[in-house]
Amino acid sequence: MKIPLEPVRGMRDLIYPDSEGIEYLKSTFSDLASSYGYELVIPPTIELFSLFAVKSGPEIKKSMYVFEDKAGRQVCLRPEFTAGVARIYLRSFRNRPKPVKIYYVGSAFRYEEPQSGRYREFIQAGVEYIGEPSYYADVELLLLIRDYYRAVGLKDYRVKLGSMGIYRKLFNSWRIPEETQDLIIHYLDKKMLDDALKLIKSSSVEADLKVIEELASFSSEDPQELERYAGEVNVKEDIKEEVRSLAKILSILKDLNVPNPYVDLGFARGLAYYTGLIFEIITPALNFSIGGGGRYDGLIALYGGVQTPATGFALGIDRLYLALENSGWEMPKKRLRVGLIALISDLKYVDLTSSRLREVGLSVDVRITTKKKVSDLISDFSSLGYDYVAILGEKEYSSRSVTIKNLKLRTQKTLDIDSIKSGELP
Amino acid sequence: MKIPLEPVRGMRDLIYPDSEGIEYLKSTFSDLASSYGYELVIPPTIELFSLFAVKSGPEIKKSMYVFEDKAGRQVCLRPEFTAGVARIYLRSFRNRPKPVKIYYVGSAFRYEEPQSGRYREFIQAGVEYIGEPSYYADVELLLLIRDYYRAVGLKDYRVKLGSMGIYRKLFNSWRIPEETQDLIIHYLDKKMLDDALKLIKSSSVEADLKVIEELASFSSEDPQELERYAGEVNVKEDIKEEVRSLAKILSILKDLNVPNPYVDLGFARGLAYYTGLIFEIITPALNFSIGGGGRYDGLIALYGGVQTPATGFALGIDRLYLALENSGWEMPKKRLRVGLIALISDLKYVDLTSSRLREVGLSVDVRITTKKKVSDLISDFSSLGYDYVAILGEKEYSSRSVTIKNLKLRTQKTLDIDSIKSGELP
Repeated sequence: MKIPLEPVRGMRDLIYPDSEGIEYLKSTFSDLASSYGYELVIPPTIELFSLFAVKSGPEIKKSMYVFEDKAGRQVCLRPEFTAGVARIYLRSFRNRPKPVKIYYVGSAFRYEEPQSGRYREFIQAGVEYIGEPSYYADVELLLLIRDYYRAVGLKDYRVKLGSMGIYRKLFNSWRIPEETQDLIIHYLDKKMLDDALKLIKSSSVEADLKVIEELASFSSEDPQELERYAGEVNVKEDIKEEVRSLAKILSILKDLNVPNPYVDLGFARGLAYYTGLIFEIITPALNFSIGGGGRYDGLIALYGGVQTPATGFALGIDRLYLALENSGWEMPKKRLRVGLIALISDLKYVDLTSSRLREVGLSVDVRITTKKKVSDLISDFSSLGYDYVAILGEKEYSSRSVTIKNLKLRTQKTLDIDSIKSGELP
Repeated sequence: MKIPLEPVRGMRDLIYPDSEGIEYLKSTFSDLASSYGYELVIPPTIELFSLFAVKSGPEIKKSMYVFEDKAGRQVCLRPEFTAGVARIYLRSFRNRPKPVKIYYVGSAFRYEEPQSGRYREFIQAGVEYIGEPSYYADVELLLLIRDYYRAVGLKDYRVKLGSMGIYRKLFNSWRIPEETQDLIIHYLDKKMLDDALKLIKSSSVEADLKVIEELASFSSEDPQELERYAGEVNVKEDIKEEVRSLAKILSILKDLNVPNPYVDLGFARGLAYYTGLIFEIITPALNFSIGGGGRYDGLIALYGGVQTPATGFALGIDRLYLALENSGWEMPKKRLRVGLIALISDLKYVDLTSSRLREVGLSVDVRITTKKKVSDLISDFSSLGYDYVAILGEKEYSSRSVTIKNLKLRTQKTLDIDSIKSGELP
């Protein structure tokens, strides 16, 4: 019987140290989101396809894992979390005082061409801030991102801001149908400006293509420049207001030490449910974004709820890990590792000793020696990068002690097991 | 557009406090397994069906989520972790010094009839201890389980021990083909003794059905009683040895304070890869096991590796949570929750204050008041079970302070934000 040892194409096996690195990034996000008062929601991995069919955008629909379950339901593996959280909000939170703040961490699935940093199963951490129309909510999201990247040690990144509000208002004023708008936005997202312009032209006689071309090429990190641009650009007042509110948010983010924010009016996001501010996190080390989000004030109503403002983001944890690794990151070590070699047969005593060493914060890998020589075991532990070896022989057994060797410093100490403290280690 | 708000049948939405409870049980397991020197492996959710088709047992195969991906591969959602970990062992760990100790935590999927505590997506935490033939490895697994349940506060449980070695050796001595053995074991697992006996009878003329009936009804928590039984039972010496080694393990576990171990010789496990000691954790509160495992010395070779002894277990995290809930468990609180009401417009100062409160270990949910009255906000926070409300008004702003109200004790204090300490909270 020959079983392929490679994972299925696009999938991957995470082993140490990458597994622990990813786990660290996940748990740091959970801690931080919960310190911001967000509540954890764990949505199911499998959802009805119809949940995503409504408003995910053409690209995601094409790349979903869709299949029939044994009862004939058309189900899928979630390609992202926002739709599932919106469903859960309507099911379980709609009667709670607003706003409702939710976070999640988990795998999502898209059947796309695998590349460096892009897998068909990938890990997302994100939040949804539901029920608050004010820009304060959007600003809080970016503070959370700021604090998260600070906590894990990501230094070099930029925050790109844009507005789907500008495009939606423009397209509405030109009476372009919503489905067509979704496709135009998809083209803008993919930087296929010519296709976008062609489609706009063919869908509306009122459209001013020059405005689109101008927006698509405007980018600035200066709020005042953006203010000036709002004055000049040839659009109606309500759209100028959208540009001015972007300038205001840009200015606030600078003030709050969010690193390197800038506005790019040509920026669009492929998920079709965005309605207002959108943003993405860019690191120079990688040629793709490591996270993004924005305002989606229409989604809850689309799913059958009352009109409810909402904003949120999702961060790519695999991509963040890659960016950190490329910048020479060292994962904080949770515990020093000890290989405990027990040369005695009293398992109760071995258990007691290893429990004591775990209590002082060590990771203790116990080996009851049977065939291997102690010197071979020590060199095994050394080659695996362990910090210490602990020896429990007859001598130690009779004096209720344990001998600990520091494998890096080559020092050793014999310590009383009843009073061992982490500061006493050699 | 009408979207169903319920999750797909058999799936479930985990929200607070269940979500945090499950998360706590997962992270406590990770911490403990890593303190035992186990390394985290994160296998993909999607595997080739053939990986499980080999040796999972008839029941699991029937209940898997199997589908074709876009490239026509027959893939499935993992129904358990051991097969994936064995594949990864062969791919990435086979040249490492033995033993290799691995842990995992994640979702698995089985299309079964949903019941209380049984979902089609469920969370497992487990370990695989690969490359060690000695019973020391099995004993370590049960110590890890003992410490884990102690850490999370599960008190009332029993550890049922059995042996697939006894059955495999008996069936081999009766020259019953392996595939038939798998089916007999499936019947024994399901307590369908008559079907098992019928199949044994029809597959072998040498079979002694009386021995099977006798084994199936023997159960004891007394190692000496088991020793005596080994002397009496009408089987060959190598099978008596299997019974004696069970007695020895039972005796060691009692000595090591593993709660309520006992041997049930009629106990079998449905996964067809077990070869030796097997065990299951039973809580009186629930009518199903909350975890189990055993030795599978043949699986690695079956997947194309050299003959490699291995043992492992998987614990059901959802079922553990249910058992804890039924016993009146209270989840340890990570952080006290504060609702911060900011009545000022200086967001930089709001950010500073909330950061300071987070640094002293509080969870801070910031609300910039726009429309709601402060008294309404306080009653919202109170109804949501928050511990404190913090007020940041003009008075506090001008004196670099914040007023904190304890919602339970109805006390309050105004604290200097630059020197706030957690001990000073009202």
